[in-house]
Amino acid sequence: MSNCDCILNNLPLPERKLIERIRRRAGPLRTKGLIAGIGDDAAILELPRNCQLVATTDLMVEDVHFRRDWHSPEGVGHRALARGLSDLAAMGADPWTALLSLALAPNTPQAWVDKFLRGFLKLARKHDVALIGGDTSASRLGITADVVVLGTVPKGRAVLRSGARPGDVICVTGGLGAASVAIRELRRRGKRQTGRRELLPQPRLAVGRWLREKRLATAMIDLSDGLSSDLLHICEQSRVGAAILESAVPRAGAATMKDALHGGEDYELLFTVPKQKRLPSQIEGVPVSTIGEIVASRRPAVRILSRGQWRPLAPRGWQHFV
Amino acid sequence: MSNCDCILNNLPLPERKLIERIRRRAGPLRTKGLIAGIGDDAAILELPRNCQLVATTDLMVEDVHFRRDWHSPEGVGHRALARGLSDLAAMGADPWTALLSLALAPNTPQAWVDKFLRGFLKLARKHDVALIGGDTSASRLGITADVVVLGTVPKGRAVLRSGARPGDVICVTGGLGAASVAIRELRRRGKRQTGRRELLPQPRLAVGRWLREKRLATAMIDLSDGLSSDLLHICEQSRVGAAILESAVPRAGAATMKDALHGGEDYELLFTVPKQKRLPSQIEGVPVSTIGEIVASRRPAVRILSRGQWRPLAPRGWQHFV
Repeated sequence: MSNCDCILNNLPLPERKLIERIRRRAGPLRTKGLIAGIGDDAAILELPRNCQLVATTDLMVEDVHFRRDWHSPEGVGHRALARGLSDLAAMGADPWTALLSLALAPNTPQAWVDKFLRGFLKLARKHDVALIGGDTSASRLGITADVVVLGTVPKGRAVLRSGARPGDVICVTGGLGAASVAIRELRRRGKRQTGRRELLPQPRLAVGRWLREKRLATAMIDLSDGLSSDLLHICEQSRVGAAILESAVPRAGAATMKDALHGGEDYELLFTVPKQKRLPSQIEGVPVSTIGEIVASRRPAVRILSRGQWRPLAPRGWQHFV
Repeated sequence: MSNCDCILNNLPLPERKLIERIRRRAGPLRTKGLIAGIGDDAAILELPRNCQLVATTDLMVEDVHFRRDWHSPEGVGHRALARGLSDLAAMGADPWTALLSLALAPNTPQAWVDKFLRGFLKLARKHDVALIGGDTSASRLGITADVVVLGTVPKGRAVLRSGARPGDVICVTGGLGAASVAIRELRRRGKRQTGRRELLPQPRLAVGRWLREKRLATAMIDLSDGLSSDLLHICEQSRVGAAILESAVPRAGAATMKDALHGGEDYELLFTVPKQKRLPSQIEGVPVSTIGEIVASRRPAVRILSRGQWRPLAPRGWQHFV
């Protein structure tokens, strides 16, 4: 009985069985500090000493963040968790546990749900993240997942967006634009679902942790919206400007400069480092490029040196609602 | 740019503006222990000493948990938060902060969103809960909210579902079945939206805290699915049985016994207390009824004494997917 009588009836498993199935697949929870997990009203966790909690939540909505005819269920599960893990990487935090809320359309095959969980849990295990709770529901149309990731960070050591100072150099991991290229490819080849052409972003947790431990990064963000948007976020929160060199922006494979500057979902790390610090060319096996410098500015703005001319770089990254 | 090209364009506010609006309405955050809130990759929190973290997440899906033509947007916002607060009450935990993920259908008026937020934030302020983060997205059809509530509890003092022992008495707060009556009323009167006939459940946080502080409850759950279902949850987790007296089950207003036994969404507390302990007839102004006793049982099951006969009470509470 609920406050609504339009119950959706034709899902493969009743809610209790679905939760039991998720619980079984999540496996026994040996997570440090976990007092109570799936099966009570809420999860209970005990933080390690001298650590702060880091919490983030990310939506994964059908036909907005994924398409069932383009993306494999495993890939959707992977990305649903990867988004939150990438947020943690951008704080220099260590991932710990996750909660999964899943609203399923009446036509969702149980096999889709099982494969989604497989992709989700595979990435979770890789980073020692325990699935400790969540919620399930029917939905009228389309699948929605909301994933909470909880992490820890030594007290006062999280890397915020707000610490960039004029003179800091701007760095980025990996190559940019790969996700844009993958989407163009999916679109061009039509609607056949395939796991091979889609990208499974690997959150840069080791890089984020390394930067935190070495106390090198003054500000950090993960590239989810695209370089032009996310660098502006750092400028806004730090109350500075940024100047970057187009020629220094690392492009992934077949990515165009537009892909690299504005393409979202690359989940690389963008961070700033005081000029006098030395940065290796690779961190934890991931190449790092210096692409520009933080400048004093009355208003947050990004400028780019392109073909011998400085011009403003407007944020043209992905915004769902624009 | 995203991994999907079917972007939904006709929402009232672009995502950044919506987030800024939510942030403004949430007001300045003076929450104890909050290091970073809305505006960074993740929120950072520092737990009070000797406390454990309590975390829960609840979906609120259009046409499953609410109907736009039945429920006021304020009421939907209220209930979206109340569900998580009630989970915390059932652990004896103190609420602290919340994260809100909101997926909005293209036809959602901004006024609806504003009123939803008003209802959400009014309840949040009442319980000193700060909105510290979340996510926003478009959705193809229907509104989905997922609310994370984080709370704290003194180390080792959370009341789980698993602590009930044979001989414990079974107690419940308030009167049951009110939500069922309200729904029947809404259904009977047709589709006119009205805030007056819908119920705004008040999470029993003060009662939960009192029971924790007095160390009186051995097990506790909130009545979200209905008495028959939720009492079985306690039996399952505690590996016991339960025997209740129909005549002792407190009914709310016009509720039938069926409403009281199986109706969901009452958000009262169901808990067990060792027999030798004395319980007042009211806790923090809320009436408390003793309705039965925990019994030893090889399998988890609830029996009810009704018209002079003991019979099994099957769980017939609300399950979305059944």
